[in-house]
Amino acid sequence: MNRWLLPQDRVPEAWYNVTPHLGDALAPPLHPATRQPVGPDDLAPLFPMELIAQEVSTEPWITIPGPIIDVLRLWRPTPLVRARRLEEALDTPARIYFKDESVSPAGSHKPNTAVAQAYYNASGGVQRLATETGAGQWGSALSFAGALFGLEVKVYMVRASYLQKPYRRVLMETWGASVVPSPVDEPEHPGSLGTAISDAVRDAASRDDTHYALGSVLNHVLLHQTVIGLEAREQLQMAGEERPDVVIGCCGGGSNLGGISLPFVPDAAVRLLAVEPSSCPTLTKGAFDYDFGDVAGLTPLLAMYTLGHDFVPPAIHAGGLRYHGDSPIISALVRSGRMEAVAYPQKDIFEAAVKFARTQGTVCAPETGHAIRAVIDEALVAKEAGEERVILFDYSGHGLLDLSAYDDFLNDRLID
Amino acid sequence: MNRWLLPQDRVPEAWYNVTPHLGDALAPPLHPATRQPVGPDDLAPLFPMELIAQEVSTEPWITIPGPIIDVLRLWRPTPLVRARRLEEALDTPARIYFKDESVSPAGSHKPNTAVAQAYYNASGGVQRLATETGAGQWGSALSFAGALFGLEVKVYMVRASYLQKPYRRVLMETWGASVVPSPVDEPEHPGSLGTAISDAVRDAASRDDTHYALGSVLNHVLLHQTVIGLEAREQLQMAGEERPDVVIGCCGGGSNLGGISLPFVPDAAVRLLAVEPSSCPTLTKGAFDYDFGDVAGLTPLLAMYTLGHDFVPPAIHAGGLRYHGDSPIISALVRSGRMEAVAYPQKDIFEAAVKFARTQGTVCAPETGHAIRAVIDEALVAKEAGEERVILFDYSGHGLLDLSAYDDFLNDRLID
Repeated sequence: MNRWLLPQDRVPEAWYNVTPHLGDALAPPLHPATRQPVGPDDLAPLFPMELIAQEVSTEPWITIPGPIIDVLRLWRPTPLVRARRLEEALDTPARIYFKDESVSPAGSHKPNTAVAQAYYNASGGVQRLATETGAGQWGSALSFAGALFGLEVKVYMVRASYLQKPYRRVLMETWGASVVPSPVDEPEHPGSLGTAISDAVRDAASRDDTHYALGSVLNHVLLHQTVIGLEAREQLQMAGEERPDVVIGCCGGGSNLGGISLPFVPDAAVRLLAVEPSSCPTLTKGAFDYDFGDVAGLTPLLAMYTLGHDFVPPAIHAGGLRYHGDSPIISALVRSGRMEAVAYPQKDIFEAAVKFARTQGTVCAPETGHAIRAVIDEALVAKEAGEERVILFDYSGHGLLDLSAYDDFLNDRLID
Repeated sequence: MNRWLLPQDRVPEAWYNVTPHLGDALAPPLHPATRQPVGPDDLAPLFPMELIAQEVSTEPWITIPGPIIDVLRLWRPTPLVRARRLEEALDTPARIYFKDESVSPAGSHKPNTAVAQAYYNASGGVQRLATETGAGQWGSALSFAGALFGLEVKVYMVRASYLQKPYRRVLMETWGASVVPSPVDEPEHPGSLGTAISDAVRDAASRDDTHYALGSVLNHVLLHQTVIGLEAREQLQMAGEERPDVVIGCCGGGSNLGGISLPFVPDAAVRLLAVEPSSCPTLTKGAFDYDFGDVAGLTPLLAMYTLGHDFVPPAIHAGGLRYHGDSPIISALVRSGRMEAVAYPQKDIFEAAVKFARTQGTVCAPETGHAIRAVIDEALVAKEAGEERVILFDYSGHGLLDLSAYDDFLNDRLID
């Protein structure tokens, strides 16, 4: 066996909320003007009340509404796969498992929260959502979810990606979304996630019919992604594994990493490992401080590892990892030592991604390549030690809309 | 429930061979020079003996070797999905099921035969395969399969596609294949499947270490694809359906249509429907005759519906359906009346594909859009008649590498 499937009625019925487990390690967001903790009313112009409540909830489990589960069942539970061919190529005693989130309609883990956010906004009477997207995985996911819940979706796409990745724009438009390059008022600026968040927040704050949606970083986003780890834990047991020795995910804002790893936080025997690009080394070289989520300073201040909200990372291909900050939950886990972090240059990433494609068959997103790089290194350490370690990672998305990155790697045009 | 999954150990253990059921309706291929039926020795420079034997086998079931099943299990059995959201949007009493072949590493049904062909060639001592590709689904599949069995793969890609779809080329190169535009000796010629087949056959015939591989049309190719229909039949029963009323597939050379429909041929209560583009109307307007499979006249003559081997179809986006001929098996079924055929212009196709994306969530290949168009029309006929018909179709591939086609449709640039 190399794939473990769960029937549709085993989509988790509740999200796992790790925040009670973190206690005081999680500092509250501050209002950008007053620097006092933000309250629900401060956030109400941007988010529906259910999501605001989830952002600060201390309940350990939060029930998933039926209409969300109905949509998740279009592709969930996702397969847990053992990468036996990669193991054989590495000649490692490690057993490597991955949770395949690339099977969603939008091709990544992002729909897990996009569907929830679209549902809560639609059921709260909102007609329109504004959001940002970098490489396009999040914008695609929200466009898909908006189409299913009858919401108009406006996506502010980082201009450099908008110009380099027209297929991503077309995908969003196929689901009915409207996509414009950001920053909207500086046509020569290449843009960044920080500028696009500013554009989307301004849009949502200026219209009564519109809310804002964020694809990572916030507590409620990571909460929605915990279906990944919850399913994976059950599937690992089907595979005969008591627990993973290490859980690995790439980390930009932290949503796929949180999704696969948070359900394992209480089990101290499980190592957790974040993988980021060395050109945007938030967790490995950033400072832990209060900072804005966007360039313009419109968002609340979050307590997190940050490279500074005006940091513009180099144009690496893993656009989803080009973010100056990080999820407060992930930041707290790293700061406390519960989670480790490592950074790699992108040539190392694509070397690993191509090895994966030529052994396991599938071509991953550049973001996912970061996790695979770390998995290979962990498997080689296990080989060196002669130990049968169990490695679990999140295969967060496919790379079918990122093939120009592979072209650059195969033709030695990558710059680190 | 809207998805029926089978465990890995339920990948079929034998392929279903329909040819004994067809009897005399299937005329033998003729040698291009002598016009006598070809023998195994005529084909030996191009194909391994196991495939030549399968091409003419009259055994009703042919055992699938273990190493092929091992690779198929990377993604098979594929899900059977009920398209409930599409049904609701159409307000039809019909129950619409599709077999999702887009989940393979190469994104279509093509690996079902690519893996088998790579295995038989590798186990027969061949080191290198030459093939053609149009839109790129077949070339991708053989590149993937070649990587897993250690074969060098050379792909002759129709020049128009090579220039328009650089991502497809990169995907093949990521798996290690070498890709060149065809025709190789006429750099200004846009190419066609017919010219690319000529290039690939010439390559294979001129080198001792090289065989040729074809992605459709031939009996052994359709044989390998029958895993689709065999799994679907079992999954329909899991879903509580005795049989489908109609089985639908798009048709270029006939491999995905054959895959889903051939196991249902003996059940006369099941209608079979081929869907093709009105700009390449092989089954609906072609003549039934002996014709070459390629432009240069290098292949055996096949008894099939054909538009003439020098027919160059318009550059519609469904590149996989731009073939002048058709599988002899499919042709025999249509000629005998066992299978129906219908043709659509491409604007109708993309209208259906976008409706599918906005209801079911996934973006299909333009080829697959043909099947969906016919499915919608059958569902509307059922609505008109007030009948609970069961419709089964093959979701042959995703459209993530065909998004420029959607861009053209959404911006009213499609030409029929």
